[in-house]
Amino acid sequence: MQVKIKISDWDAGIPVIMLKSKTAGRLGIHPKQRLLLRTLSKKPKQIYAIVDIFEKFLKENEVAVSLEVKKVLGIKEGSKIDISIAPIPASLEYIKEKLNNRRLSEEKIKLIIQDIVDNKLSESEISLFVSAMYNPGMTFDETVSLIEAILSSGTTLSFRKRYVVDKHCIGGIPGNRTTPIVVAICASQGLTMPKSSSRAITSAAGTADVIETLTRVDLNMEEVKKVVNKTNACLVWGGGLGMVPADSKIIAIEKELKIDPEAQLLASIMAKKLAVGSKYILIDVPYGPFAKVSKKKGKALKFKFEKLGRHFGVDLKVVLTKGDSPIGNGVGPVLEMQDVLAVLDPKKQGPKDLEKKSLFLAGEIFEMTKMCRKGKGIFLAKHLLDSGQAYEKFKEIIRAQGGKLKKLELAKDSYDFIAQHTLKIKHLNNKKINSLARVLGCPLDKTTGIYLHKKVGEKVKKGEKILTLYAESKPRLGEAIRFLEKEKPVKF
Amino acid sequence: MQVKIKISDWDAGIPVIMLKSKTAGRLGIHPKQRLLLRTLSKKPKQIYAIVDIFEKFLKENEVAVSLEVKKVLGIKEGSKIDISIAPIPASLEYIKEKLNNRRLSEEKIKLIIQDIVDNKLSESEISLFVSAMYNPGMTFDETVSLIEAILSSGTTLSFRKRYVVDKHCIGGIPGNRTTPIVVAICASQGLTMPKSSSRAITSAAGTADVIETLTRVDLNMEEVKKVVNKTNACLVWGGGLGMVPADSKIIAIEKELKIDPEAQLLASIMAKKLAVGSKYILIDVPYGPFAKVSKKKGKALKFKFEKLGRHFGVDLKVVLTKGDSPIGNGVGPVLEMQDVLAVLDPKKQGPKDLEKKSLFLAGEIFEMTKMCRKGKGIFLAKHLLDSGQAYEKFKEIIRAQGGKLKKLELAKDSYDFIAQHTLKIKHLNNKKINSLARVLGCPLDKTTGIYLHKKVGEKVKKGEKILTLYAESKPRLGEAIRFLEKEKPVKF
Repeated sequence: MQVKIKISDWDAGIPVIMLKSKTAGRLGIHPKQRLLLRTLSKKPKQIYAIVDIFEKFLKENEVAVSLEVKKVLGIKEGSKIDISIAPIPASLEYIKEKLNNRRLSEEKIKLIIQDIVDNKLSESEISLFVSAMYNPGMTFDETVSLIEAILSSGTTLSFRKRYVVDKHCIGGIPGNRTTPIVVAICASQGLTMPKSSSRAITSAAGTADVIETLTRVDLNMEEVKKVVNKTNACLVWGGGLGMVPADSKIIAIEKELKIDPEAQLLASIMAKKLAVGSKYILIDVPYGPFAKVSKKKGKALKFKFEKLGRHFGVDLKVVLTKGDSPIGNGVGPVLEMQDVLAVLDPKKQGPKDLEKKSLFLAGEIFEMTKMCRKGKGIFLAKHLLDSGQAYEKFKEIIRAQGGKLKKLELAKDSYDFIAQHTLKIKHLNNKKINSLARVLGCPLDKTTGIYLHKKVGEKVKKGEKILTLYAESKPRLGEAIRFLEKEKPVKF
Repeated sequence: MQVKIKISDWDAGIPVIMLKSKTAGRLGIHPKQRLLLRTLSKKPKQIYAIVDIFEKFLKENEVAVSLEVKKVLGIKEGSKIDISIAPIPASLEYIKEKLNNRRLSEEKIKLIIQDIVDNKLSESEISLFVSAMYNPGMTFDETVSLIEAILSSGTTLSFRKRYVVDKHCIGGIPGNRTTPIVVAICASQGLTMPKSSSRAITSAAGTADVIETLTRVDLNMEEVKKVVNKTNACLVWGGGLGMVPADSKIIAIEKELKIDPEAQLLASIMAKKLAVGSKYILIDVPYGPFAKVSKKKGKALKFKFEKLGRHFGVDLKVVLTKGDSPIGNGVGPVLEMQDVLAVLDPKKQGPKDLEKKSLFLAGEIFEMTKMCRKGKGIFLAKHLLDSGQAYEKFKEIIRAQGGKLKKLELAKDSYDFIAQHTLKIKHLNNKKINSLARVLGCPLDKTTGIYLHKKVGEKVKKGEKILTLYAESKPRLGEAIRFLEKEKPVKF
């Protein structure tokens, strides 16, 4: 079936073909279906593309294609191409095998990952893969194959440095913004730390969202190399690097489904760390009733991570940390950056819990890399923080990424939640705090969020503030107040 | 976060919001994510929409929205709206419960189905639901809840007629186009048969694709009522009726994933039959090594269907039929319609197997509705066919739907597959025949497909044709010939 290209200079990031709903309806094609597009030459060039519906500017039998299609087919506006329903990718069969609880070989996993990278699998099909990884789940060997497949489908970095280190937190704890502090401390001691982070998935902010309040984070590979060679470290958004494209696509789907199968969690973290050539990896697993995992589940994760570390020949340590309540006072991109800066700046007083946890993590890294004797890491870290060396290093990294320290504004509408009588904070529910921050506009509106004046166990006198909400509009603020009253993220 | 509406008159069929990739990237929004869109008034109107990326015609912070969004929000081009990341629908939690092998209550299933209809669940999320229905699967009670939920989320038809009948085939057999013949025979005897059919899912053609060679099939509800009241029957595309919108959306995903969980197969068929008010339902389950199900699986399906029939108080019968090889000679929309017309026209000689099976099915319906005594149904059916009454009825239905009988052209490029020596056809592999037809261009190119000159068990002399391939272009034909040689859908 032949169609005419009307628009082809549209950058969708993936190969897409847009048809009028009438054209699609007549052909029995439905949105998100995969078509095989071919040129009309004797030796046709071809590409798989996902169908979308668009009415404007198109006549019947006219289509719009994305730039990716234009590049591969070498066509221009006005040319005709042949479209047909794409054959079923073999990898879809393998996904079903996994769904039927069969063990997948290395080759099969490799093909699934390759087909994800090549856009041969649609989002629904990747979703089926995520579902199969979740239940029935994957074995250790399958997880290893997955890591290798993700790594070999992307590009890797390597630094000719002795101590390439990395830290990672499995997340779930509001305000827990230790990464910028740990990176600054470690880099100021000369360790190489090419740190890439994610944006918020279900939380109020990811490290990338927070760093973005001061500088751009969407650096490409060349820029990362430059920044790291200059400053020992970087603080960038991993999704922009395109190092592990398969992982990014799977994570996008997981983000949507809000499920995080263990095999993919392990593979995603390991692949990202191995891709930047890390030799020493510290993984923070916060546990507890309001954390992502229980202590038992955390220990099981520790076992698996460390087994994977041995398999891939890297020095990997998992620390289990208490994750019952938020860390730091701010929750939301700007509020968290303010906490980070207050901890880093020797002239200021930052949240004690955030400082303590950051020193602990940096100390662990110093001990792993033998920068100091066993048990002394935390003191070295404290020295680097108190002397202002870490703060200087942080500013250097931000400058190298094109940003600078500046006054950070908060959202204009705010609301103080006041104690009506003297009370003691019993608990702060992490998930509800995150949800409250999202109602306020996080992570899109960087200036919004929650400031926690009091932490768990603290006494609050009548009339004192418990927390302050920040939003960009009155309706948002009103909605957040209702959420606060109904869902009670703070119990006293 | 506020954005400006640039385009709003685009009919995507579902609520969609399009952003520049730069805007989306900056906000950390990814395509297919769900946003909550709200007007800026004091009592904001709101709608959930799926994100898509589009570059052309948009500046940063400008968006395009589909007509569905415009209607609900009552906005025009140039207005501003507030966008935020949508909260997670509760039904997503229930889908995960099912994935974790927990039994779902009627209420939970109802909410999942309602959220599918309301566009609160994305395609990936529906995919997760399909995956959960596939493994771990659903109980009988859950299947009943699913049917009720699908029914109550849509609209139903009812005809004030004593004998509202329906037939259904679970599919998988190429060329098996009994529906138009059975409908014509039954309607000519006065039975009411509001038949809706699907388009091809994995096969060469669905009944809707075949009927479309003569008339439009995308009738709306009002038109269906008119046609049925006038002629006793119709032959329309079910997807266009919008009777069971939840089912259509789930099927679209299944079509993509190529999986067909049993609960959904049962629910989909039952809901569609109950929605048109059928009281007598005949279900054809072809079985065999090249069919969708084995004899054992077919018997299990029969048991479940009949149990559902009793539950919903309808007279439901399942017939198991041999499904080892194609039925009729043509495979592809036009080729199959030619077979159907040859069977219906008393002056012509149609494929014997197609005629025999159609008479058997019509006869069963006559016996269920007591149109004749037990064992006599097939004779009544034969009389209606031989006398030309069924043919007249068929033409009447086609005319009532706006079409007419006409000369049907086949594709211009063809290839005869000739016996190189005398041989006997051992088997015809249904799946490979379907795949071959799709390589030729089915179901998009209606004039393409396969003509089977010989059937299983028949002798072919040297130089005689085994089959003929039809395609709209030489490259397609060449590809099909290679497929034929490599995959060997015909064994002798």
